[in-house]
Amino acid sequence: MPESTPPAHRVLIVGAGFGGLSCARKLARQPGIEVTIVDRHPYQVFAPLLYQVATGGLPEDDIAYSVRAAVPGASFRRGDVVKINAEAKTVRLGDGAVLPWDELVLAVGSTGTTFGIPGVAEYAMQMKTIQQARAIRHRLLQTYEDVELGRRPKEALRVVVVGGGPTGVEISGAVAELQRAMRREFADLHGLASVTLIEAGPRLLPSFTEKSSAHAKAELEQLGVVVKVDSAVDRMYPTDVHLTSGDVLTAGTIVWAAGVAAPADWKDLGATDRANRLEVSPTLQLGDDIWVIGDIAHVAGADGRPLPMVASVAMQMGRYVARAITRRLAGEPLKPFAYKDKGQMATIGRRRAVVEMPSGLKLHGTPAWFAWLGLHVFYLAGGRQRVSVIADWFWNYVAWGVGPRRTVID
Amino acid sequence: MPESTPPAHRVLIVGAGFGGLSCARKLARQPGIEVTIVDRHPYQVFAPLLYQVATGGLPEDDIAYSVRAAVPGASFRRGDVVKINAEAKTVRLGDGAVLPWDELVLAVGSTGTTFGIPGVAEYAMQMKTIQQARAIRHRLLQTYEDVELGRRPKEALRVVVVGGGPTGVEISGAVAELQRAMRREFADLHGLASVTLIEAGPRLLPSFTEKSSAHAKAELEQLGVVVKVDSAVDRMYPTDVHLTSGDVLTAGTIVWAAGVAAPADWKDLGATDRANRLEVSPTLQLGDDIWVIGDIAHVAGADGRPLPMVASVAMQMGRYVARAITRRLAGEPLKPFAYKDKGQMATIGRRRAVVEMPSGLKLHGTPAWFAWLGLHVFYLAGGRQRVSVIADWFWNYVAWGVGPRRTVID
Repeated sequence: MPESTPPAHRVLIVGAGFGGLSCARKLARQPGIEVTIVDRHPYQVFAPLLYQVATGGLPEDDIAYSVRAAVPGASFRRGDVVKINAEAKTVRLGDGAVLPWDELVLAVGSTGTTFGIPGVAEYAMQMKTIQQARAIRHRLLQTYEDVELGRRPKEALRVVVVGGGPTGVEISGAVAELQRAMRREFADLHGLASVTLIEAGPRLLPSFTEKSSAHAKAELEQLGVVVKVDSAVDRMYPTDVHLTSGDVLTAGTIVWAAGVAAPADWKDLGATDRANRLEVSPTLQLGDDIWVIGDIAHVAGADGRPLPMVASVAMQMGRYVARAITRRLAGEPLKPFAYKDKGQMATIGRRRAVVEMPSGLKLHGTPAWFAWLGLHVFYLAGGRQRVSVIADWFWNYVAWGVGPRRTVID
Repeated sequence: MPESTPPAHRVLIVGAGFGGLSCARKLARQPGIEVTIVDRHPYQVFAPLLYQVATGGLPEDDIAYSVRAAVPGASFRRGDVVKINAEAKTVRLGDGAVLPWDELVLAVGSTGTTFGIPGVAEYAMQMKTIQQARAIRHRLLQTYEDVELGRRPKEALRVVVVGGGPTGVEISGAVAELQRAMRREFADLHGLASVTLIEAGPRLLPSFTEKSSAHAKAELEQLGVVVKVDSAVDRMYPTDVHLTSGDVLTAGTIVWAAGVAAPADWKDLGATDRANRLEVSPTLQLGDDIWVIGDIAHVAGADGRPLPMVASVAMQMGRYVARAITRRLAGEPLKPFAYKDKGQMATIGRRRAVVEMPSGLKLHGTPAWFAWLGLHVFYLAGGRQRVSVIADWFWNYVAWGVGPRRTVID
């Protein structure tokens, strides 16, 4: 077959999350490369702040921004990728369109997983998308009115959060603060509202040190959260969570923050782990022209364990692949991907957090909260978002308890 | 019938708009008075800024705030009033509940009216509620993607706004600016987008001076808005506006800002004018125990013409009725309601406005815009809203063209 030089080297990026956009931003500046991003939504979601939307702390616009505006120089195509043809080098979208590529970057992220526990899919609320966060916010607020009018039983004001990782810790702290704020509007109902955080393992934040775990637990309890460790969910019913211990928790809102997995749609591309992640080469490749980054990539870290499914890993992978693509085009060899640990953090309510840096530095309490705030605002892509989010948070912080957006807009 | 003294004097306020809440805020502080507010939504909408939500300038949370939080000391009941029984002194809600009252304040506001023009109800978009503003925003933004993917014809990017009052002027200016901002994201489509403002009378802003009208027209044209005066709508089809002149305008989005009227539901309470407004006494009463305020009250002003259906009239009426109720309870006589003219204003795009004060002071251009901004922010009830809105607007103003929220969140 005669070789023809295309007018530009076409890189197709599937997924406009942290990984896909980091890659796109770096590549869109390169001459001779044509970048197209495909996503089912025209916006990127700043997922670490979904819990703020779910608890009325931020408007959803503040954590979603236009993909087109975020990456000047790249094309954006809204659509669902339903088929990847590695032979023909095309993807097919749900609307039937077929897009060709010279190199593909698979960055589709992850979704909530139920571990097959009966009732979770039906009765627990996930918090991986704007729509899901909006649904939780609506449920939390609407329940007050429903209970006041006698449409739902008093137990409906109880909230159960499943999963003691950063997301579970963040959402349960924020729910406790929302319940405190709602006291002003539904004074009679205040004693009925509660939030219980369930973790299957022996401590919260299992990836942090034991000291940080204990700190997080104490802080949550101070906010009024009931923390239950060593408590695994056996099954769920519409308003009941049954634990393997036999205990039953009644709740009007059940939030599932216990597990994430990559979508199972791309298993035919290669070997996958239990979380549906594709096992890729040290250069994040599947074959020659497919790159896999972010939550869907299974890559071992320095300690031999797979890298965690977090934003900083995805962003570093995205930038690595952008560099790798330009290097290969220039005929240069590739070095394996190496993750530079950025530490980890979780916020607990409005003024408390735990932060662990790879240097060994650990922060707790208010200083950690400010570090958390600064880093998250720094990562928000749009300048407008930064200003809005700072203004909103500042207000939340100064006007304790007045802040949250406590009204249901249907 | 023996007279019994109720434990508190029950005032029921129907409608949580500018009028109802002004009344409630003043009355809720009075001893011996029990205030209940009924509204179908648990939030008040700052209606003068709906056009900002419709064009992506502000998130909807910024212009809606919790009624319960806004009036401490008053009770709130969410519901639709379907029946007022003046004899039994009760109202019935859509869910069947019956609420008793000693005095009723009717403050239900107004809604868009089509003047019976064929096709308007079906094909034009109204902008009186958050949901309607959200729908306009979604349509405006989604059309770009639909046209890019060939799902809608190129003409769909044309926008027609009907009505040359403040609302029509504001929305058409904001649409023109949104279209300019969208150029960054859909560069190929920019030449296809347009906005035409239609006014049936001989000039825009008919309640302003001729000079202000001319100024508004010139400013809009500078933003790229096509202004057609003396152009009445004859009928509408899904994508066509037929004028009485025989001209036909094709559009993908038709916004109706041409007329408002009170709801027709309360005509059996008394005599009404053409806009369904109830003709009330100089003390805003219907009979003895029903007060009517805001857009649904027909009251003559100093010039003999009915007072306009605007927020400042409603707020003054609300405060007047609160005072009147306490006066009557104290056995003091009532003075007739007298409206203190606060002037009028309309904004044109991000940095221009026209303001006319009763003193004769007239402002045009940027100074008028700052006056407009200051007054609107001042009127926003919640402290949080003020901070958010100022931050958002400041950003819009400084970062010209970057500001609007330009992404469709389904």
